[in-house]
Amino acid sequence: MSQKITGVKASAGIAIGKAFLLTTPDLQINTVAIEDPANEIQRFQEALARAKNDLEGIVLRVEREMGTEHADIFKAHLLVLEDPELVDTVKDKISNEKTNAESALNDVAQAYIGLFEQMDNEYMRERAADIRDVTKRVLSYLLGVPFAGLGELTEEVILVADDLTPSDTAQLDRRYVKGFITDIGGRTSHSAIMARSLEIPAVVGTQGITRAVQPSTLIILDGHEGIAIIDPSEEEIAFYKRKQADYEAQKAELAKLVNNKTVTLDNHHVELAANIGSPEDVAGAIANGAEGVGLFRTEFLYMGRNDFPTEEEQYLAYKHVLEHMGDRPVVIRTLDIGGDKHLSYLALPEEMNPFLGHRAIRLCLDNQELFRTQLRALLRASVHGNLKIMFPMIATLEEFRQAKAILEEEKKSLVNRGIVVSDQYEVGIMIEIPAAALMADQFAREVDFFSIGTNDLIQYTMAADRMNEKVAYLYQPYHPAVLRLLYNVIKAGHAQNKWVGMCGEMAGDPIAIPILLGMGLDEYSMSAGSILPARQQLSRLSVEDAAKQIDTILQMSTSAQVEAFVKEWLEKV
Amino acid sequence: MSQKITGVKASAGIAIGKAFLLTTPDLQINTVAIEDPANEIQRFQEALARAKNDLEGIVLRVEREMGTEHADIFKAHLLVLEDPELVDTVKDKISNEKTNAESALNDVAQAYIGLFEQMDNEYMRERAADIRDVTKRVLSYLLGVPFAGLGELTEEVILVADDLTPSDTAQLDRRYVKGFITDIGGRTSHSAIMARSLEIPAVVGTQGITRAVQPSTLIILDGHEGIAIIDPSEEEIAFYKRKQADYEAQKAELAKLVNNKTVTLDNHHVELAANIGSPEDVAGAIANGAEGVGLFRTEFLYMGRNDFPTEEEQYLAYKHVLEHMGDRPVVIRTLDIGGDKHLSYLALPEEMNPFLGHRAIRLCLDNQELFRTQLRALLRASVHGNLKIMFPMIATLEEFRQAKAILEEEKKSLVNRGIVVSDQYEVGIMIEIPAAALMADQFAREVDFFSIGTNDLIQYTMAADRMNEKVAYLYQPYHPAVLRLLYNVIKAGHAQNKWVGMCGEMAGDPIAIPILLGMGLDEYSMSAGSILPARQQLSRLSVEDAAKQIDTILQMSTSAQVEAFVKEWLEKV
Repeated sequence: MSQKITGVKASAGIAIGKAFLLTTPDLQINTVAIEDPANEIQRFQEALARAKNDLEGIVLRVEREMGTEHADIFKAHLLVLEDPELVDTVKDKISNEKTNAESALNDVAQAYIGLFEQMDNEYMRERAADIRDVTKRVLSYLLGVPFAGLGELTEEVILVADDLTPSDTAQLDRRYVKGFITDIGGRTSHSAIMARSLEIPAVVGTQGITRAVQPSTLIILDGHEGIAIIDPSEEEIAFYKRKQADYEAQKAELAKLVNNKTVTLDNHHVELAANIGSPEDVAGAIANGAEGVGLFRTEFLYMGRNDFPTEEEQYLAYKHVLEHMGDRPVVIRTLDIGGDKHLSYLALPEEMNPFLGHRAIRLCLDNQELFRTQLRALLRASVHGNLKIMFPMIATLEEFRQAKAILEEEKKSLVNRGIVVSDQYEVGIMIEIPAAALMADQFAREVDFFSIGTNDLIQYTMAADRMNEKVAYLYQPYHPAVLRLLYNVIKAGHAQNKWVGMCGEMAGDPIAIPILLGMGLDEYSMSAGSILPARQQLSRLSVEDAAKQIDTILQMSTSAQVEAFVKEWLEKV
Repeated sequence: MSQKITGVKASAGIAIGKAFLLTTPDLQINTVAIEDPANEIQRFQEALARAKNDLEGIVLRVEREMGTEHADIFKAHLLVLEDPELVDTVKDKISNEKTNAESALNDVAQAYIGLFEQMDNEYMRERAADIRDVTKRVLSYLLGVPFAGLGELTEEVILVADDLTPSDTAQLDRRYVKGFITDIGGRTSHSAIMARSLEIPAVVGTQGITRAVQPSTLIILDGHEGIAIIDPSEEEIAFYKRKQADYEAQKAELAKLVNNKTVTLDNHHVELAANIGSPEDVAGAIANGAEGVGLFRTEFLYMGRNDFPTEEEQYLAYKHVLEHMGDRPVVIRTLDIGGDKHLSYLALPEEMNPFLGHRAIRLCLDNQELFRTQLRALLRASVHGNLKIMFPMIATLEEFRQAKAILEEEKKSLVNRGIVVSDQYEVGIMIEIPAAALMADQFAREVDFFSIGTNDLIQYTMAADRMNEKVAYLYQPYHPAVLRLLYNVIKAGHAQNKWVGMCGEMAGDPIAIPILLGMGLDEYSMSAGSILPARQQLSRLSVEDAAKQIDTILQMSTSAQVEAFVKEWLEKV
């Protein structure tokens, strides 16, 4: 009998294959008195050497296949293995206390971890995580328990895990990983976003897949429905193979829309743009028919390195994106770190509620050299395309005015130095804090555009961390409270003749799109993979019809009511 | 020359006295080889005995003066000192490694702390804090560095500290502590709320008072202005003694208003109520002229114990408050734990953003036995006074409907068992999540009342954790975005003939009061100490005049603009 497990639809597509369980091995450590310390030290050194050999192989492969910055974490692991203080302390402990290598290593590592974790410094706490990872790798050799790292894959599998860390996803190899299923996570968790960006089918948040499958169990993963079928029957396999083929055919159909403009049934044009995370993503955006870049997240320029990117490095990255997009608009967001995004070389104090903390524009206004460097790079790049500069996490008009004044200062100083800066770029803000959404009428007088960041706006409006499983049910994009805020922002922008876009997950959601169209949203920015389906959907909708539904929707009392209403409406289209 | 330091006004009043520095002693540990382990073990045991003696004295005093529940933390510390595993490990280390007691204790303690801190369990992590505190106490004896505990005060002082932890405030003795000044914290941090509740003058968030004073330095603390004057001149001392006397005279003037109703200049009555945290606070509320209890925070019934309070215990507490308030309204809020409030006997998973997490009604709806016990206690108590039941952290109508349905079920089952339940109690919600404020028109059809919880509402609306120094500037009660939400809630309530109250810090704020009056707020609930000044202020304001200002205020673009406008308006009153 096959078994069906339901989770969250994280990334579309169907995969059929054997399960590969990425589990935390059971590394139970017993302390044993030993007779021959020299022999025990020998065992320890052999385990070290094997772990080192593993890691060197991983570094080489990750550098080759994913780029050097993704290999940094494994280089840090190698440094731990080579740390003489740690290694010698373990050897001394084996000799002096006549204890087994597992126990000696574990004790010493725990002491180091305890020490680093107490430090009031993010960088040092990351070292604790490195030591923990490396210790597990060495212990698994000492104990003879296989260490199921992602770097060891050699055949096509469906990955099954409790969760995937950024370090896991850095090792995801699309040749072998045909899909993944996790116990935890939601639609906007790191692993889900990564799956969509890699176009790997995925189901997350199943709350139990790791307990339900054995290594090599055959699984069907349906990313459209958010389900996994364990030990499927022949009929099921046949059914899903057809579904997989249909999906491929549908993808081919959508591919025909790549070079079309997005036009509704009643001949209105709206702009479908892509969210990108690095200059390399531009090719994928264009291949998916993006009419612009609605959000270039610049923080990826700052991550996976040992120091801030220079003005020149940033300039080249922005120039690359602007030039490749030609005259299509490119919205570049200034640095949005803090929250759950950290830089190893910028010590930030630990915060109790980082999502309500010192992040994005707040941090940039307090670290002006960092901010000014980025603004100069943007201003210099402005001559290479259709640039729109966007400030994230704006809560008050004072913040926007201050950020804009700094931009003006830098522009003046560049011009004084004879550097050419365009006069055509726009300056706008993300609307992702309820205060800004409520004050959109005031902001609209001073900005060139709004782009609504729904991921954060929804979590603040509902007071629910979208990464927190326990309250994920409150992350309700269709909640009338959220929709009322969105409508307020769009109306306020239009009243001052400013365009209004959206760059959250919601902009690509087929239930949200008809509502947003009815409200008059001008630009929809989404993961590249969602653009063609959205273009197809919009070609079947009429702005005039959609606009008539808005008053009814805004008077509804729950998200469930809105969702049911839109589904019924779409069936009639 | 005297020196002036500015901070946040945390609690009104003037204090003049010597500084008592509550500092973390410098416990620098050096590892030293020793010759005579027996002697070193003796030193260790003496330090243990002295620390134990200290703690036993503190337990007795805290139990006598503040109640047994406040002594729990020190009893936990005693248990650590008596833990044979910890004590024996230290002794073994001294013997085997011939190392000094300080180093041995520190190493062993750090290993324990590291171990406990890694555990995925709040209760065990609290044990790490206990071990750290106790270790410091013992180390301070070993090193001969004085351990400046609050339990050791014997003369009147002004307390100067980096911050006060709950464990510090549990030891605050009003006989000796005439005021306090801290480096960190804001107006709504734990220490500030505690100061107002104890009526101790306080200034917090000075960001440097601990570096500016020496032990016994003479200080003037002005809680009205939020300043501290270090080494004041004779003139300054004379000036502040007069100011202190004026303040006492003003307090006497206010005291005459205790039995008056709150009536505006144009003869409208509004209700001024008190926020209370325990049944014992009722006396203080009445002594300060409260016309009701606008918020009884029931979580204090659940804290400082080893298990949930029984239905009977809760019933008696609610009955006490209702009976003592007579026919005056008493709003009792159902359990609001999670966030920054934890129970040692209820394991909650650690959350990355607890303020956006699984707290209050969310947690109660998921732990229904806990919730139903409280509801039964409330229903049984309903016959003893004018009860209004309030659900906290409501985001959606579904949550309110579910909570109310559970209440109805419990009522029916009590009535079926022949237990009398009043038919007069009301059921309302706190408005503290932007979604609820935006949907107030829909909620107003189903609730009996709203009470706006501004502390949370402001932090979600501005996306700024009010406990986080770095973003405290964004906690802006007068921000037009916040005021627009408040006005929306008040209008929506009144449109359905429901009363609207406020139980956040803002309700007692002299700048906010005129605005709230103009918006038509019906009930203002605040710390008891703020009631009489508010009554005096309201007697000089007219609803009709205030209402005329609202449109102008809501069209302003910043908090600073609103504040300046209200100050100018008040000067004319």
